[in-house]
Amino acid sequence: MTTALRTDRYELTMIEAALASGRAKRRCRFEVFARRLPAGRRFGVVAGTGRLMDAVADFRFDGATVEWLAREGVVNPATLEKLHDTTFSGSIEGYAEGELFFPNSPVLSVTGTFAEAVALETLALSVLNHDSAIAGAAARMVAAADGRPLSEMGSRRTHEEAAIASARAAHIAGFGATSNLAAGEQWGVPTMGTAAHSFTLLHDSEEEAFRAQVAALGPGTTLLVDTYDVERGVETAVRVAGPDLGAVRLDSGDLPQLVRQVRAQLDSLGATNTRITVTNDLDEYTIAALRGTPVDAFGVGTALVTGSGAPTANFVYKLVAVEEGDGSWRPVAKASSGKASRGAAKRGRRLIGADGVARAELVIVDETHDGIPDGPADRDELRDAGASIRDLTVAYVTNGEMDARYRGADGVRLARAHHAAAVGELPADALRLSAGEPALPTVFQ
Amino acid sequence: MTTALRTDRYELTMIEAALASGRAKRRCRFEVFARRLPAGRRFGVVAGTGRLMDAVADFRFDGATVEWLAREGVVNPATLEKLHDTTFSGSIEGYAEGELFFPNSPVLSVTGTFAEAVALETLALSVLNHDSAIAGAAARMVAAADGRPLSEMGSRRTHEEAAIASARAAHIAGFGATSNLAAGEQWGVPTMGTAAHSFTLLHDSEEEAFRAQVAALGPGTTLLVDTYDVERGVETAVRVAGPDLGAVRLDSGDLPQLVRQVRAQLDSLGATNTRITVTNDLDEYTIAALRGTPVDAFGVGTALVTGSGAPTANFVYKLVAVEEGDGSWRPVAKASSGKASRGAAKRGRRLIGADGVARAELVIVDETHDGIPDGPADRDELRDAGASIRDLTVAYVTNGEMDARYRGADGVRLARAHHAAAVGELPADALRLSAGEPALPTVFQ
Repeated sequence: MTTALRTDRYELTMIEAALASGRAKRRCRFEVFARRLPAGRRFGVVAGTGRLMDAVADFRFDGATVEWLAREGVVNPATLEKLHDTTFSGSIEGYAEGELFFPNSPVLSVTGTFAEAVALETLALSVLNHDSAIAGAAARMVAAADGRPLSEMGSRRTHEEAAIASARAAHIAGFGATSNLAAGEQWGVPTMGTAAHSFTLLHDSEEEAFRAQVAALGPGTTLLVDTYDVERGVETAVRVAGPDLGAVRLDSGDLPQLVRQVRAQLDSLGATNTRITVTNDLDEYTIAALRGTPVDAFGVGTALVTGSGAPTANFVYKLVAVEEGDGSWRPVAKASSGKASRGAAKRGRRLIGADGVARAELVIVDETHDGIPDGPADRDELRDAGASIRDLTVAYVTNGEMDARYRGADGVRLARAHHAAAVGELPADALRLSAGEPALPTVFQ
Repeated sequence: MTTALRTDRYELTMIEAALASGRAKRRCRFEVFARRLPAGRRFGVVAGTGRLMDAVADFRFDGATVEWLAREGVVNPATLEKLHDTTFSGSIEGYAEGELFFPNSPVLSVTGTFAEAVALETLALSVLNHDSAIAGAAARMVAAADGRPLSEMGSRRTHEEAAIASARAAHIAGFGATSNLAAGEQWGVPTMGTAAHSFTLLHDSEEEAFRAQVAALGPGTTLLVDTYDVERGVETAVRVAGPDLGAVRLDSGDLPQLVRQVRAQLDSLGATNTRITVTNDLDEYTIAALRGTPVDAFGVGTALVTGSGAPTANFVYKLVAVEEGDGSWRPVAKASSGKASRGAAKRGRRLIGADGVARAELVIVDETHDGIPDGPADRDELRDAGASIRDLTVAYVTNGEMDARYRGADGVRLARAHHAAAVGELPADALRLSAGEPALPTVFQ
């Protein structure tokens, strides 16, 4: 199925007008960046790039699409003829999926003719803004959980396709598993889940329900103990499953107190290895508040899939340079108030101190588009003995050829590992939940 | 393509356990409702029902799906054999799409065997929670715009499929058009849009860009005048397009002041019919703040597609009644702290005063499941001469047979009309933006 109509109409009308003015084939560089992080956040997480590659591969104005555009009169027949069955022949590079970003980090660039590059504007932003918002929230929850495992279970609180992308993004940012089966099938994310309150209510007693579940799923299952009364629920659960009961789940109540009570009760019943998992409208703050309790695992829903107060990552897609007739490049930028941006090609590098801790986000500005030296530049920051620079740029598409490594379940695994390594470089206080400035300063060079 | 894996894993493990306990075929009634509206909101808007019908029609554990579930060991082979190629044979009824809802309004019910009804839990909630969140925000923006047209242009700030659903939901709630082409193609939502800043920057001057756009799209087009300097931009726009220029668009700056300046400038240049459209990170509050200015149209993006602070509608899907062996029904409900709900079948009716203004949301509780009288009951509220009751329930699926009227572009048109009529019944102060109690009390009967 083509993704070509996941596009704002103005992209096609601009192509029509640029064809008329002779500018449609002018080579252009667009960049994706965020002017700011969500209020108080200390870093962002790039996610969605692997999904974007799939979407770009499937971006084609096929016969049926062209017919619909003609019938609707969106653009004229000459424009449709140009669009028909063309594929992206330009280049896309950017931050590795899972990488961190800061204000003005050049997380993605698209270089190609104006027509082919502008056509990807909405699609690129949709994918990156959504997935990065989820990954950014997930990373804070992972930090708050301080090593205890987290599962994503928010599918029901977001669009059914966004749910799959959310499970994928959360896994990249460190969640261990998801409730969403499609995320397992499409992206290889481990899936989890046992039973809801309706299962208990379906049976004539809690005991009947627990017996049925243990008979079918074994004593290692997780029993949901808060349908009626938690204390009775725990007692029944251990009586039915025995002390080898895998886990109990709590989905309501005053969790910090309840977790301690349930732990004591489980221990007194000999179920010392039975884990406690909690799932009651958690966010990074309630997770942190439970750190001092004997909770074993967290299930997170609504707050995760809605970005915990920041449901979009604020990425924009801006034209930063155009090619002149003589092959040179000219930086361009919007100038008017409030939303000015910076022209010219940019690439991101991260300055890492001798102690392995990141110091700054370097944005190298290439005014002439002649290319940026590959090695670390001779900068003041590098005079510190042992400092190094990590290049943040990955080539996703080169002259229309896509690197397949970043797609599919393999791409997710790669992104998850990359994210863990990048978080490992952050200064310790970057993982605090309290509102603050970006953890690294963005330095234009 | 099947929607069967847009499901939480626990739905399938519950089916496995219920098959083992002999309860999988017990007839059950699940209901969708919200315990509360988003903080301060005065009403909610049901949206997504037409999309949900498509998803239910495509919900089938086909061969490839069953194979994947087997390979992953999600449930046992006997369960997969039962699931394989079954389709929903139960009944779904609920509020018409576009209808308003209040706390505890029974917006949807699903009646069928436990297995077939619980399997739809995640999918039903995903669709309704997302689309209703967007429609709820959209309705407030429509109220704030006070008759001036609104367009949806937030695709880039949400998941690429959620974008299409958002455009659809906004249109149901009164937005006139969308930038999203797929929403036009799939749902018949009118599409709009002309040019972005990149189009101006692509050309060597603003004048060259405007000439190209007017040559291609005619003087009736909308020119974006804030790439460099608004005053010069407006001057150039009218010089290039003439006084018949369709509209100018402002996407930055201090809008209330800027709109007045631009109106005066357009009038002084003879472009008295040229409209002013604004698109700078608007929400319902900034729209209301522009009401006193000569703005002609609004384009809304981020705030709309993120639900303007309420990105999900808080709907839950709860088992409320189970059938006994003798054919009678027994109400069931979770009892534990904080999330208790009310058992038994419920249906919504709206009490309308003699003046045509809604007075209350009546939730008729049918403890015995014997059915609810069709006509208005003899209630105190009805003793007011001229009061009437509007039944809010539509039959979407009856014993597996789906009513096709609510699907596709026809369903969207129906929902849009229904919404406008329902809003017309609200007390005037329900449309205030300030935080308040639900506009109608929910009365259980």
